[in-house]
Amino acid sequence: MNLHRTPIPVNEAVEKIMEHSRTGETEYIGINEADGRVIAEDLVATHPIPPFHKSPYDGFALRSKDTTHLSKDNPGRFVVTETVGAGSRASGFMKEGETVRIMTGAEIPPGADCVAMFEICQTEEKGDQSWMTLKRPMDPNQNIILQGSETTINEKLVSKGSRVNPGVKALLATFGYAKVKVYKKPVVGVFATGTELLEVEEELIPGKIRNSNAYMIVSQIERAGAEARYLGKLVDNLPTCFQAVASAIQDVDFLITTGGVSVGDFDLMPEIYEKLGAEVLFNKVAMRPGSVTTAASVQGKLLFGLSGNPSACYVGFELFTFPILQRHLGRTHPYHRTVQATLGRDFKKANPFTRFVRGFIEYEEGKVVVYPAGLDKSAVVSSLAYTDALIMLPGGTRGFKQGDRVEAVLLEDLKGGQKL
Amino acid sequence: MNLHRTPIPVNEAVEKIMEHSRTGETEYIGINEADGRVIAEDLVATHPIPPFHKSPYDGFALRSKDTTHLSKDNPGRFVVTETVGAGSRASGFMKEGETVRIMTGAEIPPGADCVAMFEICQTEEKGDQSWMTLKRPMDPNQNIILQGSETTINEKLVSKGSRVNPGVKALLATFGYAKVKVYKKPVVGVFATGTELLEVEEELIPGKIRNSNAYMIVSQIERAGAEARYLGKLVDNLPTCFQAVASAIQDVDFLITTGGVSVGDFDLMPEIYEKLGAEVLFNKVAMRPGSVTTAASVQGKLLFGLSGNPSACYVGFELFTFPILQRHLGRTHPYHRTVQATLGRDFKKANPFTRFVRGFIEYEEGKVVVYPAGLDKSAVVSSLAYTDALIMLPGGTRGFKQGDRVEAVLLEDLKGGQKL
Repeated sequence: MNLHRTPIPVNEAVEKIMEHSRTGETEYIGINEADGRVIAEDLVATHPIPPFHKSPYDGFALRSKDTTHLSKDNPGRFVVTETVGAGSRASGFMKEGETVRIMTGAEIPPGADCVAMFEICQTEEKGDQSWMTLKRPMDPNQNIILQGSETTINEKLVSKGSRVNPGVKALLATFGYAKVKVYKKPVVGVFATGTELLEVEEELIPGKIRNSNAYMIVSQIERAGAEARYLGKLVDNLPTCFQAVASAIQDVDFLITTGGVSVGDFDLMPEIYEKLGAEVLFNKVAMRPGSVTTAASVQGKLLFGLSGNPSACYVGFELFTFPILQRHLGRTHPYHRTVQATLGRDFKKANPFTRFVRGFIEYEEGKVVVYPAGLDKSAVVSSLAYTDALIMLPGGTRGFKQGDRVEAVLLEDLKGGQKL
Repeated sequence: MNLHRTPIPVNEAVEKIMEHSRTGETEYIGINEADGRVIAEDLVATHPIPPFHKSPYDGFALRSKDTTHLSKDNPGRFVVTETVGAGSRASGFMKEGETVRIMTGAEIPPGADCVAMFEICQTEEKGDQSWMTLKRPMDPNQNIILQGSETTINEKLVSKGSRVNPGVKALLATFGYAKVKVYKKPVVGVFATGTELLEVEEELIPGKIRNSNAYMIVSQIERAGAEARYLGKLVDNLPTCFQAVASAIQDVDFLITTGGVSVGDFDLMPEIYEKLGAEVLFNKVAMRPGSVTTAASVQGKLLFGLSGNPSACYVGFELFTFPILQRHLGRTHPYHRTVQATLGRDFKKANPFTRFVRGFIEYEEGKVVVYPAGLDKSAVVSSLAYTDALIMLPGGTRGFKQGDRVEAVLLEDLKGGQKL
């Protein structure tokens, strides 16, 4: 078993992983299940918008040529032939001297080419008949939203690879996409390793701690839009462990193990990789935390060996697993969006390695400011609760000062971005 | 039926709604269902972290007083009495001249008070016995993470009213919260009104359009963390309509109708409000789009009459319905986060009213820049797909220029913020 580890730069590690990426399969789902999913075909207009000439106001539809001569001193009087509400249609073709009472959103009656708003019209009624008086001329197409003026048929409105948000949902409904073609959610299996781990419902006993990484990773997987499958705890026994991993690979698209990637005696993962015939892409990254992160490829599937340390595990997932899941999901920008930001407070400790410090974003006078989320001791779990960004601090011999320009990786942003 | 409408400022409208806000009920759910939910009790540490003195490294646990005299020329040789992995405990109390091989995360054996990392130790074995040689002194507590050094028992880690993210989930697991007390999701009923509306699976027919608002609003409700219940289309018939609304109020916490709030003949909502004995909080807001937005209170429940125009409907929900849902959900910051931003391009049209222009956020050189999402014609639905912010443009006689400082309301931000 070769325990030698040569650290590679973060960028290179991400590239090695993304070389194994592919876009996943697609499926049709009902529109009501589409929120947050990624569309797998362009959303195109199946009809023009509006689908007919329509009225933007409540008013009276007219032929503009009947109004050219009108003025205060020379008002025109029109016979109101009918009333048309949204969803209804006029019964006939408009003739000279006629008008149709029309409601917002209703189709302009054939023959009419303008709408006079209620506010500028006088009306009178006698028995069953009513008349409208207008004292000004109207232009052709005045107060008419022309068919196709907002969207023409076959226009591409949203590109495949986009996430369904309320606006996209409205478009899907408008254009009759009762079934939506989306990318299938990749299935990500999660094993926890470590005999010290208790499940959440177990009483704490001396020497042991509760398994928090598996719950956290499941949340991260779901936040990334994928489907998580917690497969339980691997025991520290090579044959059993190997069997569990080998079998799990058949059922999932990606496999994550947390813990068991350090150099201690009880870490079986390197041996399991070897026994599986896995191609190890890297087993150490020049970064903190998460330096002992492993990625390996077996049978066309990727295995991620994330650290057992909660923040290293968290960071390892967001940097290495997240983008390949997004690519699988067909996202056009599979990486987390990164922004330039101002460091909100001093971060004095220097470190020779690139660091990804847990932080949160504030906006101050139009600027993006990022604050470290509490102490960054590698084992401190509580700061992750306040984390919505990772502050990337390049390695070097000095610390960082409040006001320094840094890069921040946005973890809750839905838009996606370019490679680091 | 009083159709008189006096517009009130946006701020005032929001205040009138929030006067009717209350925090909703709570329930217990399993930790695996907790993502995105709002915790209804403070998350406190049920034990210290670490729960015991532990080793941050693989190495040898020692009594520091056995090492005070050690140097290159005067190495110390220790009997390795046993090996302790994470999750195991040493079998006895450490005596002079002894050492215990210890793995990362394992409990420090009683009697030991420091850990020498593998890298600085030499080992030798003879038969069943092994020894470790060390050539330098160790300090008390060196390489030991002391019990409670990261979190003490009963420390409040996350306040009630916070959303469960992967970091909070990790804490819930760590501290044994197998069941999590959360605020119940408010149930929001949605009625669409308008005879012009077809459902998504229906073929388009002349004069009609498909119902997109209901689908959009359902997405917005779910994005806001609440539970949506689409109740179908209200017909333009007063008694039936009244019956449907009166009955729905019994089953939901909030009720939204889209459409039917304009001044046209076929808008029955004002009459329904009157017949219900509803207290109308406002029925017009000095803003664009969405000026014909109504809020009313009946039997302690709020009714929102949102415009039938898609963007007015969208904006009305985010400004008026969103915050009261967040308050119901126990969120400490129930409003959308607003940020100062630089306008990314000219927006030349002036308007006397406060406008909420659909837009999206970009980050450019550490600054927040917001771009209008396409044309802002009130009926254009396609730009909503690209909207993740509303650009607030104060009313006035001039347009706005690229580079102008504006306020933007962030719609996908999970943190929440203060009132506009």
